[in-house]
Amino acid sequence: MFDLIIVGGGPAGITAGIYAARSKLNTLLITKAFGGQMARKAVSIENYPGFKEVSGLELIEKFESHLKRQKIKILEDEVMKIEKKNEIFSVFTKEKKVFQSLAVVVASGADPRPLEVIGEKELVGKGVSYCVTCDGPLFSDKTVAVIGGGNAGFEAAIFLQNFAKKIYILEYGEEVKADPENRQKAEITGKTKIITNAVLKKIEGKKFVDSIIYEDRKTGKEIKLEVDGVFVEIGSQPATSFVKDLAKFNHLINRLDEIEIDPRNCQTTTPGLFAAGDASDVKYKQIVIACGEGAKAALSAYEYLKSLKK
Amino acid sequence: MFDLIIVGGGPAGITAGIYAARSKLNTLLITKAFGGQMARKAVSIENYPGFKEVSGLELIEKFESHLKRQKIKILEDEVMKIEKKNEIFSVFTKEKKVFQSLAVVVASGADPRPLEVIGEKELVGKGVSYCVTCDGPLFSDKTVAVIGGGNAGFEAAIFLQNFAKKIYILEYGEEVKADPENRQKAEITGKTKIITNAVLKKIEGKKFVDSIIYEDRKTGKEIKLEVDGVFVEIGSQPATSFVKDLAKFNHLINRLDEIEIDPRNCQTTTPGLFAAGDASDVKYKQIVIACGEGAKAALSAYEYLKSLKK
Repeated sequence: MFDLIIVGGGPAGITAGIYAARSKLNTLLITKAFGGQMARKAVSIENYPGFKEVSGLELIEKFESHLKRQKIKILEDEVMKIEKKNEIFSVFTKEKKVFQSLAVVVASGADPRPLEVIGEKELVGKGVSYCVTCDGPLFSDKTVAVIGGGNAGFEAAIFLQNFAKKIYILEYGEEVKADPENRQKAEITGKTKIITNAVLKKIEGKKFVDSIIYEDRKTGKEIKLEVDGVFVEIGSQPATSFVKDLAKFNHLINRLDEIEIDPRNCQTTTPGLFAAGDASDVKYKQIVIACGEGAKAALSAYEYLKSLKK
Repeated sequence: MFDLIIVGGGPAGITAGIYAARSKLNTLLITKAFGGQMARKAVSIENYPGFKEVSGLELIEKFESHLKRQKIKILEDEVMKIEKKNEIFSVFTKEKKVFQSLAVVVASGADPRPLEVIGEKELVGKGVSYCVTCDGPLFSDKTVAVIGGGNAGFEAAIFLQNFAKKIYILEYGEEVKADPENRQKAEITGKTKIITNAVLKKIEGKKFVDSIIYEDRKTGKEIKLEVDGVFVEIGSQPATSFVKDLAKFNHLINRLDEIEIDPRNCQTTTPGLFAAGDASDVKYKQIVIACGEGAKAALSAYEYLKSLKK
């Protein structure tokens, strides 16, 4: 029986782990991998205070080794379900293990949102990718499409310019949403072509991706582009389905399954269950904010556990 | 006319500055000094993610140089008053300057709380100190008293063990509040003596401190201790008096002048005025939490400024 189980190994989960261990809670942290969305950062991180410019992978390494210096149990596994009976939480994992605790911090972050178009599922790992830092280097001298004209899409394109010979950025709207700095960086090499008013219809290919078809929203025409890869950058969705019976999702803000929390202390609607970072309805999704929220959640869990003992 | 004025150069103010500059707000940051309460940290910081163990001064240097890399104006001065007329804030400084902006983030942190006993004011800088990292090294081979038996008091004593020959820790309560790890570290050298149930009555000395008088709460007797220095470690008070006409202080939680904020976005009761970190009523006072709140305040200020332009 643990005092606390933390689900997730991104900025919020790692910070919760550091704080919980230093509060001498008997803590288990379960995560599929470390770093969360930092692992998918295609450009340097320049807004985490203390590091002027650091790659996602470097910052993950620093966070992870900081966590591992604490007295905390860490398990690489995936949480599938959480139940609560009386005052005890049971946490079920993909590897068919069950762990129990008196408190839980959900810091499971968010996963990339899929396009949900024809051919996407079939071609994942065969040219369709949700992680440009993982798969970008495979497209040396190839032609690729990035779906999504926000900052993430542009940052992906900027990264891909190091490898690919040609990059299309497809944006649904009238205008791209990326900030001017990213736009300039993407345009400067002449490798990147921006296509607005584009609705992706289909990804084609047998063994591997060989083309995409999009509709031009202005003309209604369908246009085919020959590409070797498709990078999906249309935002993310909270990875919270395993807790849907215990937590309330806040659908007032958006349609995403963000766990509703009391923003003062990260408490969910279930006593003893806390949420932090991108899994929660915290207003801004930023590394340093997720860290702060993780610390809050762990300190709140500590107070909750103290109150149980009275 | 600035878009945003940030008051304070601690973790919250610096992070707000990094975020504001990166959002291309025309920003002025006014602070007496950099680092806030980190400058008074007597032991290493081990709970700011990414740095396993770092001194307060090192972390300040890293934060400060990160901030100074941004396009932001920085002024070393002290804010004395803020007014708002129509939609414009006027910020008045000690150096008799006046600056104007459309939004303000108050991240002025907290100052050490004084004892308010006889002799204290007169002997500040003459043996009475609120900053053990600043003044501790002056007490080589001397006898000193630390007032306050919480973690801050014990951390001060642990630091002082490097210099002083004898250290008294005076605690008002029946028991000290410091955690076991700090207690053990303070007791191990045999230099530190803990006195509980002690009410400090007086600090004595002509040119410099030469003794203190405390009352033993159990016996009612007054006891004199010969000491060369007195370190005050009884907590802190928000440095927010300059904004008392614009902000509401939250006296429901404690009697400190913490600025009431909406914890989702750091908005105060005055539109365009935001507060973050220890100057606000954020529940936990921690470096990484102050950083997260500073980022939130800057992002909220950005949204507020955008809404003004509509």
